Amino acid sequence: MSGSILKRILIGKPLKTSALGEQKLNKLKALAILSSDALSSVAYGTEQILLVLAGIGFLAYWYSIPIAIGVLVLLVALILSYRQIIYAYPRGGGAYIVSKNNLGENAGLIAGGSLLVDYILTVAVSVSAGTDAITSAFPVLHEHNVIIACLFVVLITILNLRGVTESASILAYPVYLFVIALAVLIGTGLWKIATGDVGSVEHTPIGTAVPGLSIFLLLKAFSSGCSALTGVEAISNAVPNFKEPSAKNAVRTLTMMGIILGVLFTGITLLAYWYGISPKADETVVSQIASEVFGRSGVYYFIQVTTALILVLAANTGFAAFPLLAVNLAVDKYMPRIFTIRGDRLGYSNGIVTLGAASILLIFLFKGNTEMLIPLYAVGVFIPFTLSQSGMIKKWFTERPKNWKWKMSINLAGAIITLTVLLILFTTKFSQVWSVLIFLPIIVFIFHRIKGHYEDVAKQLRMDENHKAEKPEGNIVILPVAGITKVVDNSLAYAESIGQTIIAVYVAFDRESEKRMEEKWQAYRPDIRLVTIHSQYRSLVRPLRRFIDVIEEKGAENHNSVTVIIPQFITKKSWHNILHNQSSLLLKAHLLYRRNVIVTTVPFRFEK
Amino acid sequence: MSGSILKRILIGKPLKTSALGEQKLNKLKALAILSSDALSSVAYGTEQILLVLAGIGFLAYWYSIPIAIGVLVLLVALILSYRQIIYAYPRGGGAYIVSKNNLGENAGLIAGGSLLVDYILTVAVSVSAGTDAITSAFPVLHEHNVIIACLFVVLITILNLRGVTESASILAYPVYLFVIALAVLIGTGLWKIATGDVGSVEHTPIGTAVPGLSIFLLLKAFSSGCSALTGVEAISNAVPNFKEPSAKNAVRTLTMMGIILGVLFTGITLLAYWYGISPKADETVVSQIASEVFGRSGVYYFIQVTTALILVLAANTGFAAFPLLAVNLAVDKYMPRIFTIRGDRLGYSNGIVTLGAASILLIFLFKGNTEMLIPLYAVGVFIPFTLSQSGMIKKWFTERPKNWKWKMSINLAGAIITLTVLLILFTTKFSQVWSVLIFLPIIVFIFHRIKGHYEDVAKQLRMDENHKAEKPEGNIVILPVAGITKVVDNSLAYAESIGQTIIAVYVAFDRESEKRMEEKWQAYRPDIRLVTIHSQYRSLVRPLRRFIDVIEEKGAENHNSVTVIIPQFITKKSWHNILHNQSSLLLKAHLLYRRNVIVTTVPFRFEK
Repeated sequence: MSGSILKRILIGKPLKTSALGEQKLNKLKALAILSSDALSSVAYGTEQILLVLAGIGFLAYWYSIPIAIGVLVLLVALILSYRQIIYAYPRGGGAYIVSKNNLGENAGLIAGGSLLVDYILTVAVSVSAGTDAITSAFPVLHEHNVIIACLFVVLITILNLRGVTESASILAYPVYLFVIALAVLIGTGLWKIATGDVGSVEHTPIGTAVPGLSIFLLLKAFSSGCSALTGVEAISNAVPNFKEPSAKNAVRTLTMMGIILGVLFTGITLLAYWYGISPKADETVVSQIASEVFGRSGVYYFIQVTTALILVLAANTGFAAFPLLAVNLAVDKYMPRIFTIRGDRLGYSNGIVTLGAASILLIFLFKGNTEMLIPLYAVGVFIPFTLSQSGMIKKWFTERPKNWKWKMSINLAGAIITLTVLLILFTTKFSQVWSVLIFLPIIVFIFHRIKGHYEDVAKQLRMDENHKAEKPEGNIVILPVAGITKVVDNSLAYAESIGQTIIAVYVAFDRESEKRMEEKWQAYRPDIRLVTIHSQYRSLVRPLRRFIDVIEEKGAENHNSVTVIIPQFITKKSWHNILHNQSSLLLKAHLLYRRNVIVTTVPFRFEK
Repeated sequence: MSGSILKRILIGKPLKTSALGEQKLNKLKALAILSSDALSSVAYGTEQILLVLAGIGFLAYWYSIPIAIGVLVLLVALILSYRQIIYAYPRGGGAYIVSKNNLGENAGLIAGGSLLVDYILTVAVSVSAGTDAITSAFPVLHEHNVIIACLFVVLITILNLRGVTESASILAYPVYLFVIALAVLIGTGLWKIATGDVGSVEHTPIGTAVPGLSIFLLLKAFSSGCSALTGVEAISNAVPNFKEPSAKNAVRTLTMMGIILGVLFTGITLLAYWYGISPKADETVVSQIASEVFGRSGVYYFIQVTTALILVLAANTGFAAFPLLAVNLAVDKYMPRIFTIRGDRLGYSNGIVTLGAASILLIFLFKGNTEMLIPLYAVGVFIPFTLSQSGMIKKWFTERPKNWKWKMSINLAGAIITLTVLLILFTTKFSQVWSVLIFLPIIVFIFHRIKGHYEDVAKQLRMDENHKAEKPEGNIVILPVAGITKVVDNSLAYAESIGQTIIAVYVAFDRESEKRMEEKWQAYRPDIRLVTIHSQYRSLVRPLRRFIDVIEEKGAENHNSVTVIIPQFITKKSWHNILHNQSSLLLKAHLLYRRNVIVTTVPFRFEK
């Protein structure tokens, strides 16, 4: 009872199914919850590029500009491609549906499995990063990082269980504050540069020759920069969550997100280049830029706080996309059916809770140091990117609608670029991403096993034309008794009303009680057969089970069903339960799931 | 399956009830497992006295001799009294039985409750102390104290689950090695004193005047010394565990224990006095004496190791006595019946596991710093001591057997001394022991509640002469269905074989599926009534429960029993279970324990 009150407080009142429409997102809220992952990448994307270039030397920093241009090209290609995907698949599903429909089952499962894992990684990585940012400001909290990160995950899980719109309303503020904060930073920074109001500027001119630079390193820097694009997929998965017209709204939101992401990423990269920023172990690139532009003023801290918050909230994108993807997979029977059930607040609670639990597990396993998962997470995104682009090419080529060549060339460009990034990731960071090659096949295998099982079951349950359930010719009822009490009397009355043959069974631990019971039973109900079993090892369940097995075999021969009656005490107070029912629970646990017998629980209610 | 193999390896093969005789203890083994608690007190008894005297000053140390004599007198009185108790109550039970039989129910329950808590404290305190002693030798382990202590408790629990004799065989060695080690220490120490082979001896002559000494402090020192006697009760509780003639063997073991305890305690106290030992924070008194006598030689380390081991093993006394006391209380219905059941290896497993779990909990709660529990633990022992001595006085006075005056005077002396110690403990250490006054009444209250409940139940279950169970006039069967499948067909066949009225119930989440189901059912079995319920909140269980409530009421009016049939899939592989049965589990959880309906599980076995 108290459990359900707690649930009511945390999650809110259950909503009627008919309220589903009200739970849909408008563009502003959708942008907030579906793009927080992508936008948060701005906080570390430039840094990832500079970190690789720093390995060569200060001279190489100017390469961040052409690399950023490469990332922008990729971004444009992805946005254009995904616009087409959303229009083509307005019911959502993103990479999984696109790949499955055009490239076949396994391609779809690889894309889907890869994304599922990826959303878990998103949550774990971004919450850990955000927690790190926050506890860096309050060092006393630093040793509790893992617990704090887990609490954040629990909080986000609860918000999502409350429902999509409600979580969007709360989470929109930090996202927009972050966008504003970075816009102010970039605007002011560029203004200072334009007015010449910058101190000693130390940046190598673009085009400076850099000794020791290899194509491999440049590609590595580029692939690191691509980690800024990991959240782009989310919107295409969540089209059904948008207000009508959902496809159109989703496309507009996607375009808006692309523009914001492009502007912020370019701005930060430019400022970093111009101010000659080097990545440092104990201060982020964004923090360095902000303190160059504003000094350690209020604006600086505002930027730091919103950055930390958006890192935590990036997790929310995973919470928006994972459950929907799980529904798609579960509808196709690749995942357990429970993922298709809407909870009290109309969200897919099982998916939400699964995601929360899995990411808490990851945070614990890696003790909060989830940075090493970032490359894995980039690979996990670019696999479905590539597959969905390829799927779209196939689609245009097969269907040949109006303008198909133009549409196909957009997706072709997208496919080539994403495949290239994927190959670069595998080449340059193989030691960090090889595990994908092991766990992805395992996941696809599990999907197939689950579907196989559901199909077997469906076959076995389907009614054939000529199927006729065998009517039992009679019912043998077994009643375990521990003495002669009203409970026995009560259960016996029920047994006689449903069965033709009734057998009472008594398990005796010593000869004396065996004899005594036989005599008492003779006086009580000589018309009902009593079987006594002597248990040398003081086990109640094992001898009973053996006896039931024997009766079951005989019953099957004579087309009789076998029913075991287990009395259950209904106690007045719940603490009384620990004083009763242990043996019957044990017996039930042994009989359910195992035997071909019918188990009937007959209640006996205590009045006090 | 693998669980039961693990159990077999840890606990051993189940034993037949007839093997009970072989599990009885001979004197040598009994002395080892039942006196390890008392004997281990020698490791800290003297130190407890000196610690109080050290508060006054070095001059006061000679008072340890008269105080030790006081403790010895108390020991003799206790041993003589308990000899009489064992002969009078050869079936065991110690303070609980003696107090209950002679002083009434509540006195017995106070004694019993007090001892139960005490055995838990024994285990927690002694294992923590032993772990401390061991990790002091290996400082790298020190931070893992709590875990190591818990592992020790688990180990001792497993040994005890293996059976009494088996644990005695393993645990006897350390106990006897400890006795030998201390005997060698005392012998050599006294020999050195006798031959004058002792360095600069610094002890105040006995009788030296000590300024600032108060009776209060002397009493406090005395009561601290009495903590050495806390294990004396154990043997009288465990008389039934002895080989026949059990009472005689128990008395001899008790006497032997008393002599060893007296000799070791006197010896250590004498040596401490003679060598002028002061208690130190980082070295025990026994360690100081040993290094005075032997230097840091092999013998010294041998003494240290055996001392650490016996501290851990003192816990075993609790494991021998707690389950037997719990049986006595459970037989009288003051504790749940499960404590009376012998496990696979004939030990009372539930008592053993409860004790292990409770002491692990204590160790966790106090983070291994259980020293503060020692005074509590002394109070917990002297309450039953006093009660059982008083009970014996009453017994002798009422029954007046041969020599009753002599017998009574022995117990009278015992009662007076133990009561005095108890009062001293309360006076001098009230701040540490007041909690007894709260939790003991609570425990006694719980005992009464449990007994009250069992008596209510017995009354409600008892067959009256004129009782006749009401035979149901008919059986209404409710069958929740989710579609039309073989499972439904199968369950329906059984339903028809046991019931007169059959109602199929379908819970629909939308109007469309509701209509579809009604049409399909009409085609399938128009003769069986189908009720469809529309669930606005997508809950399966709540609307079903409400429907069942309604039918139940109607059924009760017409003297019909109501049976709900829940199909249960029996899957081929256990992992398949997570793909099925969730709704039926949920429904069962809501129907069991709550409703007045009969719940029947009809299995449907998948072939693959």
